[in-house]
Amino acid sequence: MIRNTTLTVPTRGKGLYPFTRQATEWLAKQDLANGVLTVFIQHTSCSLVIQENADPDVTLDLRDFFERLVPEEGEAFRHTVEGPDDMTSHIRSALTHTSLSIPVISSRLTLGIWQGLYVFEHRSHPHERRVVLQLIGE
Amino acid sequence: MIRNTTLTVPTRGKGLYPFTRQATEWLAKQDLANGVLTVFIQHTSCSLVIQENADPDVTLDLRDFFERLVPEEGEAFRHTVEGPDDMTSHIRSALTHTSLSIPVISSRLTLGIWQGLYVFEHRSHPHERRVVLQLIGE
Amino acid sequence: MIRNTTLTVPTRGKGLYPFTRQATEWLAKQDLANGVLTVFIQHTSCSLVIQENADPDVTLDLRDFFERLVPEEGEAFRHTVEGPDDMTSHIRSALTHTSLSIPVISSRLTLGIWQGLYVFEHRSHPHERRVVLQLIGE
Repeated sequence: MIRNTTLTVPTRGKGLYPFTRQATEWLAKQDLANGVLTVFIQHTSCSLVIQENADPDVTLDLRDFFERLVPEEGEAFRHTVEGPDDMTSHIRSALTHTSLSIPVISSRLTLGIWQGLYVFEHRSHPHERRVVLQLIGE
Repeated sequence: MIRNTTLTVPTRGKGLYPFTRQATEWLAKQDLANGVLTVFIQHTSCSLVIQENADPDVTLDLRDFFERLVPEEGEAFRHTVEGPDDMTSHIRSALTHTSLSIPVISSRLTLGIWQGLYVFEHRSHPHERRVVLQLIGE
Repeated sequence: MIRNTTLTVPTRGKGLYPFTRQATEWLAKQDLANGVLTVFIQHTSCSLVIQENADPDVTLDLRDFFERLVPEEGEAFRHTVEGPDDMTSHIRSALTHTSLSIPVISSRLTLGIWQGLYVFEHRSHPHERRVVLQLIGE
């Protein structure tokens, strides 16, 4: 059996935005106890990461590291039509994740105790990001 | 139900090679309308990325950025048997993707409007790259 | 049908630890010949990679490159509670993989001939790492 939904995750500039609660709430309503949850983000200027959910400093350090790893200044990009955070966003997206697959056992995501799901926004301006969730199982 | 195929994607040096059309054409012929498409590349010196499909400059900027991020010159690699683009290819592969999972709804990949599937070739010489597609669904 | 297990992979400091054999041995005992294997690591300070399984130098070069790409020295991290290899581990994890999806055909992983599964340990001290395997198929 297959169940699908699309979450909307609003973002307000670069950084990590948690959506574990939205995903687990949706999961709890499904009539499938076991299977795999596919998480897919329908954009190329933001991405998905699973990161520590305990200390918010982790998400800030991660954001800042990517700012240094893929800097907006000093790179000679061809694709700059939407500004200095355009091509850097595509690169940061390629370096992180567009899809994740997470086993579901007894209606629970098998996330480790410190793991949370995040949209990693790479653009400076606010966006509404679309994340497809699909549960396949029995 | 499960359907499998293996695509061959020819490459001619470093860069991104689209295969969205090959994947969607195969998908259209299957008798499964809903499920998950697993995309798996059987190599460790090239990889998979989902990137913007509108402006070809994005793929060139991405290629060039990885050339700077994982440079062939100035790194003291042990594994150099196949030349200066050998170990760099393995690293660039680890930094991008070997597998992708994409929900399929009503016989369509749930790619965003700007998203395309690419083989990211990291070697300088031409290759025939093997990409396994597997659709599981109903 | 769905089958699950959790592997424990012991690590002894930074580097790559193979677990292809553990995965294929488990797979051989299942009564499902075709499907998808989801591999999920329940941590944010180590990760998964598929890399070349022939020359051990590849794994050493990969480890050393990440040491340079995400250095412990000279970065002003906020999150340092567990030492200098704490935040770097989270970043190296985000740059590699928390989940992998691998098609299984006729009871075999469709890995390429040179591909092996590895836990990439980013912490300096020994750990017991948990890797969930889930096979969905028929």
